[in-house]
Amino acid sequence: MTLDPPRHLVRSAVRRALAEDLGVLGDLTAALVPADTPGRGVITARAAGVLAGTACATETWAQLDPSVTVGWHATDGADLAVGDPVAAVEGPLPSILTGERTALNFLCHLSGVATLTRRFVAAAGGHTRIWDTRKTLPGLRALEKAAVRAGGGVNHRGSLSELVLVKDNHLVGVTIHDAVGAARAAWPGRGVEVECDSAAQVREALDAGADLVMLDNLDPDQVRDCVALVRHSARPDTPVEVSGGVTLDRVAAYAAAGADLLSSSAITQSAPALDLGLDLEPAGPR
Amino acid sequence: MTLDPPRHLVRSAVRRALAEDLGVLGDLTAALVPADTPGRGVITARAAGVLAGTACATETWAQLDPSVTVGWHATDGADLAVGDPVAAVEGPLPSILTGERTALNFLCHLSGVATLTRRFVAAAGGHTRIWDTRKTLPGLRALEKAAVRAGGGVNHRGSLSELVLVKDNHLVGVTIHDAVGAARAAWPGRGVEVECDSAAQVREALDAGADLVMLDNLDPDQVRDCVALVRHSARPDTPVEVSGGVTLDRVAAYAAAGADLLSSSAITQSAPALDLGLDLEPAGPR
Amino acid sequence: MTLDPPRHLVRSAVRRALAEDLGVLGDLTAALVPADTPGRGVITARAAGVLAGTACATETWAQLDPSVTVGWHATDGADLAVGDPVAAVEGPLPSILTGERTALNFLCHLSGVATLTRRFVAAAGGHTRIWDTRKTLPGLRALEKAAVRAGGGVNHRGSLSELVLVKDNHLVGVTIHDAVGAARAAWPGRGVEVECDSAAQVREALDAGADLVMLDNLDPDQVRDCVALVRHSARPDTPVEVSGGVTLDRVAAYAAAGADLLSSSAITQSAPALDLGLDLEPAGPR
Amino acid sequence: MTLDPPRHLVRSAVRRALAEDLGVLGDLTAALVPADTPGRGVITARAAGVLAGTACATETWAQLDPSVTVGWHATDGADLAVGDPVAAVEGPLPSILTGERTALNFLCHLSGVATLTRRFVAAAGGHTRIWDTRKTLPGLRALEKAAVRAGGGVNHRGSLSELVLVKDNHLVGVTIHDAVGAARAAWPGRGVEVECDSAAQVREALDAGADLVMLDNLDPDQVRDCVALVRHSARPDTPVEVSGGVTLDRVAAYAAAGADLLSSSAITQSAPALDLGLDLEPAGPR
Amino acid sequence: MTLDPPRHLVRSAVRRALAEDLGVLGDLTAALVPADTPGRGVITARAAGVLAGTACATETWAQLDPSVTVGWHATDGADLAVGDPVAAVEGPLPSILTGERTALNFLCHLSGVATLTRRFVAAAGGHTRIWDTRKTLPGLRALEKAAVRAGGGVNHRGSLSELVLVKDNHLVGVTIHDAVGAARAAWPGRGVEVECDSAAQVREALDAGADLVMLDNLDPDQVRDCVALVRHSARPDTPVEVSGGVTLDRVAAYAAAGADLLSSSAITQSAPALDLGLDLEPAGPR
Amino acid sequence: MTLDPPRHLVRSAVRRALAEDLGVLGDLTAALVPADTPGRGVITARAAGVLAGTACATETWAQLDPSVTVGWHATDGADLAVGDPVAAVEGPLPSILTGERTALNFLCHLSGVATLTRRFVAAAGGHTRIWDTRKTLPGLRALEKAAVRAGGGVNHRGSLSELVLVKDNHLVGVTIHDAVGAARAAWPGRGVEVECDSAAQVREALDAGADLVMLDNLDPDQVRDCVALVRHSARPDTPVEVSGGVTLDRVAAYAAAGADLLSSSAITQSAPALDLGLDLEPAGPR
Repeated sequence: MTLDPPRHLVRSAVRRALAEDLGVLGDLTAALVPADTPGRGVITARAAGVLAGTACATETWAQLDPSVTVGWHATDGADLAVGDPVAAVEGPLPSILTGERTALNFLCHLSGVATLTRRFVAAAGGHTRIWDTRKTLPGLRALEKAAVRAGGGVNHRGSLSELVLVKDNHLVGVTIHDAVGAARAAWPGRGVEVECDSAAQVREALDAGADLVMLDNLDPDQVRDCVALVRHSARPDTPVEVSGGVTLDRVAAYAAAGADLLSSSAITQSAPALDLGLDLEPAGPR
Repeated sequence: MTLDPPRHLVRSAVRRALAEDLGVLGDLTAALVPADTPGRGVITARAAGVLAGTACATETWAQLDPSVTVGWHATDGADLAVGDPVAAVEGPLPSILTGERTALNFLCHLSGVATLTRRFVAAAGGHTRIWDTRKTLPGLRALEKAAVRAGGGVNHRGSLSELVLVKDNHLVGVTIHDAVGAARAAWPGRGVEVECDSAAQVREALDAGADLVMLDNLDPDQVRDCVALVRHSARPDTPVEVSGGVTLDRVAAYAAAGADLLSSSAITQSAPALDLGLDLEPAGPR
Repeated sequence: MTLDPPRHLVRSAVRRALAEDLGVLGDLTAALVPADTPGRGVITARAAGVLAGTACATETWAQLDPSVTVGWHATDGADLAVGDPVAAVEGPLPSILTGERTALNFLCHLSGVATLTRRFVAAAGGHTRIWDTRKTLPGLRALEKAAVRAGGGVNHRGSLSELVLVKDNHLVGVTIHDAVGAARAAWPGRGVEVECDSAAQVREALDAGADLVMLDNLDPDQVRDCVALVRHSARPDTPVEVSGGVTLDRVAAYAAAGADLLSSSAITQSAPALDLGLDLEPAGPR
Repeated sequence: MTLDPPRHLVRSAVRRALAEDLGVLGDLTAALVPADTPGRGVITARAAGVLAGTACATETWAQLDPSVTVGWHATDGADLAVGDPVAAVEGPLPSILTGERTALNFLCHLSGVATLTRRFVAAAGGHTRIWDTRKTLPGLRALEKAAVRAGGGVNHRGSLSELVLVKDNHLVGVTIHDAVGAARAAWPGRGVEVECDSAAQVREALDAGADLVMLDNLDPDQVRDCVALVRHSARPDTPVEVSGGVTLDRVAAYAAAGADLLSSSAITQSAPALDLGLDLEPAGPR
Repeated sequence: MTLDPPRHLVRSAVRRALAEDLGVLGDLTAALVPADTPGRGVITARAAGVLAGTACATETWAQLDPSVTVGWHATDGADLAVGDPVAAVEGPLPSILTGERTALNFLCHLSGVATLTRRFVAAAGGHTRIWDTRKTLPGLRALEKAAVRAGGGVNHRGSLSELVLVKDNHLVGVTIHDAVGAARAAWPGRGVEVECDSAAQVREALDAGADLVMLDNLDPDQVRDCVALVRHSARPDTPVEVSGGVTLDRVAAYAAAGADLLSSSAITQSAPALDLGLDLEPAGPR
Repeated sequence: MTLDPPRHLVRSAVRRALAEDLGVLGDLTAALVPADTPGRGVITARAAGVLAGTACATETWAQLDPSVTVGWHATDGADLAVGDPVAAVEGPLPSILTGERTALNFLCHLSGVATLTRRFVAAAGGHTRIWDTRKTLPGLRALEKAAVRAGGGVNHRGSLSELVLVKDNHLVGVTIHDAVGAARAAWPGRGVEVECDSAAQVREALDAGADLVMLDNLDPDQVRDCVALVRHSARPDTPVEVSGGVTLDRVAAYAAAGADLLSSSAITQSAPALDLGLDLEPAGPR
């Protein structure tokens, strides 16, 4: 499943990006090229990875100059090899150039997110899934979460309104049991997840009826023990998330330990940009 | 010089970030803690780096609940060691918790930018400066460029309205000489920089009267030759920028080759988050 | 639990309301009263009900003229009798008058929502809870859902991002079993609710592992049977929602039939305004 | 006359409504249906009433997915019987489903306003007109006032910038005569209406040259007397409004008493939603 | 009467103005002055005129840096002589300098509007009033109309929602009589003004019951005749507006001809800026 | 070169202008004309001048009613004689009338700016160019700067982010030399201009390496001396700007004195509107 981000969020993200890039005067270099010079370019992968953000790139030129057309050779989630053509961009040359950086900024960042996610997914193997977090770049969450989906990951909370995640900081003079009870009472039907840092807490969370258990900052062996504890409990299907310290090189170990979900902030917050560029065709005779 | 980003851009970035994190219902976990529970926490560096984004973190809680106070132990640009306390946050516990992630998302990303910038700056040594680019994350440019300054870097264009950068794509049936002339005519007083990928083009750019020369994707030896060419020209002080392939491990070589400015997209587009966290004090007796 | 709506949504709702009420010229009647005339008024309940929307009323005058003070005698969720004073408003008379209608429009509508909710809650008795829906007035959802909480109800989805509700319209050539499986796969940890209009579907939903069962447009006897079916299943605690045709006069019957949750669109979409008014004190000697 | 609300207000109201309904992740149930599943549904009246809000429903799907088409069988102001088809909606099934609730929220509320207005209009008979007020739901005024027009009512002030309405609260140490004079002086050409709660005040208002007289909270007999007083004055055509306590069952009596305009807040603030629903056609073979 | 423009319109106008002036990087010259350099300046009139726009100037620095204080020596509507001090501005020097131009842009334009208005008012003498139009600069209407009031003029329509002005373009196959009737029917209580370009039309307008008569592009003699016609009609107090060609040098003649209102687009659309400047005190010893 | 203003700024300026003109109810006079009445009009020059703002006028009707078409007979920068047809507007009559004023407000103001600019350009003759300033009307800068270009002028800073202009107010206990050095250090590649009010300062600025010299409030003779000083310096091509007191009647003298650039605030801040009007064709038989 690869769902596009909500359209209005694509529109507003592009609007903001163009506003910050154009300034009051617009692109000064537009004065260097006659306005009616035709242009044609190809967005190309300069590194291997996973494509994401195509809706944003399309929207960039649509807002800037509707006469520019963008034809995609691949869609979000596609694997790209070095040199793969990704899209053909055609229209007035100054408009192509003015939109180039904004469109690429979206593509490079979001493809970077998708690419790193897929590496985590690959490392985790079949059963264990890669889950994102709320550690996203401010203002870009919807787009980054869609990129995570494009990379094969799944989305944890999009906002604080969605699930109840009981963390140690919430347990102020209150037991896990009472906290889960309060969550159930206040928010019927919501998933309730409890952060645990010991087997004892896992037991407490299961007894309290938590829908998910999050193991925070445990090592793979501890995770294995906690997973066993869950599997032998009355609700053995309760999903177990591992969080904290889930680096790419430890993904396999955590997956082998039986975790259902591995959550990573790196895939959204620390993903290096994927190198994509726009190659313009040399001007023909006019 | 560390200039804060324009205040209205801080305000709007925080407004967007809170809107995306709060949803329609707000923080579901607020139901777990009595609204008047007092809280106190410390933002702490969990990795060494350079601080940036403090204005955004302050603004986050200000917008969420003005009764939360944030007291900074360090300012943008400060070097942080692991374990350094960065700020004290005090106020109603639910408000502290609700704002925690948004405030940290700003701090971790922007401190990540500042930290990577400083590593580039350190590698470049005294004369050569680190210049950012327009390859920034959409909607975050002003904040990232301020973080670059906090890290000791300098800012290239904030928008397309600011400088004239003549790239190969602009040279459509037109010479460098004519392009620079057109830029001068259209935009008096603006800096005009010309992208060059050979010594011949550097000569052409100098002849055309370019204010800056950008060497694109040349290796250090080629850079050395081009710099020499500039220094022996009629305008020997013309700053020389090196762009493309300026990875951290090549910074010293480019600097040694005499470049005045090394531009890097990695510092804004691929900087890993700096790990900062909020440690809440255990609840005392009430 | 009565949680305020997110502050930024209060601010933006008030901003829009004032903008639509002030026009370009502002309040023409401000010309009738000297700008420095002091004023004092009391917001009073003219009908019995439940108070909601106080944050919006406070915000109205704060945006209009910070020198107006609003002191509340009651908070959201309070029961009001006819004639009860609700708030004292003090400041320049023209500012009080200009903000009067906007503040009351929020209070009257949201208190109307809270009042009707409480009537449903009272009719449902102890075990069964009143759940709101997404049938809210456009642009006012966060405020109306907070008013539902003030009235003693609980909130279903704030947005489509929060829970998975499988309706008949989603079952296009796909079984309930497969739909629930797809939801689980796509959205780990989310509550999954299935709309059922027969005992057979309830069985199918339970087998598929639904977290909640929604009985749509069944009469109390049918509800009783379906509830029994759930209680004797392997997951007897699965909450059962009754939806469709839950009018105030049928609430008791549905509650008696064992439903856990009764959802009503009327409480948000058809709640008559609660009559609250602002009585100004006669002008004293000046 | 049925004028559409200003287009930009339709656009912004729909934008807000979609934003609050979609959250960051969008419609989770979109994962249950293949994106290219074709869909077709009919919006149908489930109760008799008057249609309004069609522009908002069209705009909802236009913003969400331009490939969805909405074909109307009726226009704003049309009388609907139970079962009447109102519009055909055709396009990708997930897009139809995602927009369904938002479109219906507009239609149901605004048709509710139009329906209740028409009942008032019918009760008033030929001469007397139904006038709305500024007691509207915050952020929805333009749409509700258009719905009032669709129901056969007329609009009083859209904002405080439009007419001068002198209320008792404005008469702080100032006579009606002076207040009307001040209004005339400040705002040439504006209608000036005076709120009166006695025959003496009506006389005073007429003497002062008021353009309209508003009788506040008088019973039909008192209204009859005041109307007579106006009709025998020097300006017998001065329109007389009755305001306060104009419930549906008293409309006929007030109309019989000779009032020109009856103003009601109930038609905007307390109109129950009209029940309209979207029936999807069963999926055909694919 | 000098009413301030609605506060939210001041806020949004200033927000836009600062956004367009600050760009992404803010004020580059802030790097030239230490951030904590104290500053003090005086806004001074460099030409004689009428002050307007003070709320905007105060708001400019408030948004930019709340530590800057602005103390006014005069209020909107005050007559200024050359050299008059208008306001003292005190705070961090870089903040004063960054806000200087935006604050002055508001003051100079709006004082220009007020100044030209007052010249028209003075030329018109006692009875005849100066009326503005909808010919205002886009986005600045509320501020300009407040400046007109500061200059002693009065405001015609703030928007198309306020009055009914029947122009020749509306008379498409319809008589003045029918047009006025349609306006009355659709919009009870609204002033209805009719544009006339001949005595015959004036008679028709009066017969139709117009509330105001606008004489378009007539010379003073024609105006005199038309005014006489009104004064001898059944409604002799009907205000007469003269519009079109009301230049400053013809104001007295039109006033002498008996017009009640002279409308001018020049006062808003063509008012030259009033020269106001900020003089900074020389830096003292530090 | 005539570059259009950035499209998103045209869109937002028009959105604001329509919002302020339409109010909540829209155009009341739409009730006077059947909605389907066809209309056709011609925008005509009623005074000679230079056209600007066509993108805004097109956008006005596009936002209001996409079925209105606007066909231009001339483009921005065209010289208009009295009576010249400028554009044909065709579509539903009520939509044409509703948009008329907003479209003309843009056209008249921006053409006024272009017209006055061209008069300055003509007076300056060949070598000397007319430069605008940041003294623009708040919220309209991008549009006015495009109009300046249409009139043949060139643009100075669009925002404070673009160039470094060292003014006397920045020289607080710092020499010109140090200020220029600080600017160079902080903002590589930016043009640095220094305001000078004496030959001594010009020398200092040249020594400091300023890219441009601005002569403030000097008379033509002084300008001539300073220009000579520059021309005989080591950097004789340094552009010289004259600012302050550059009225239309002094342009020729300053140009003759050798200035490269004459900056004028009048062209944006005090340009009288150019008279353009919309003439509707008489209604044909229907």
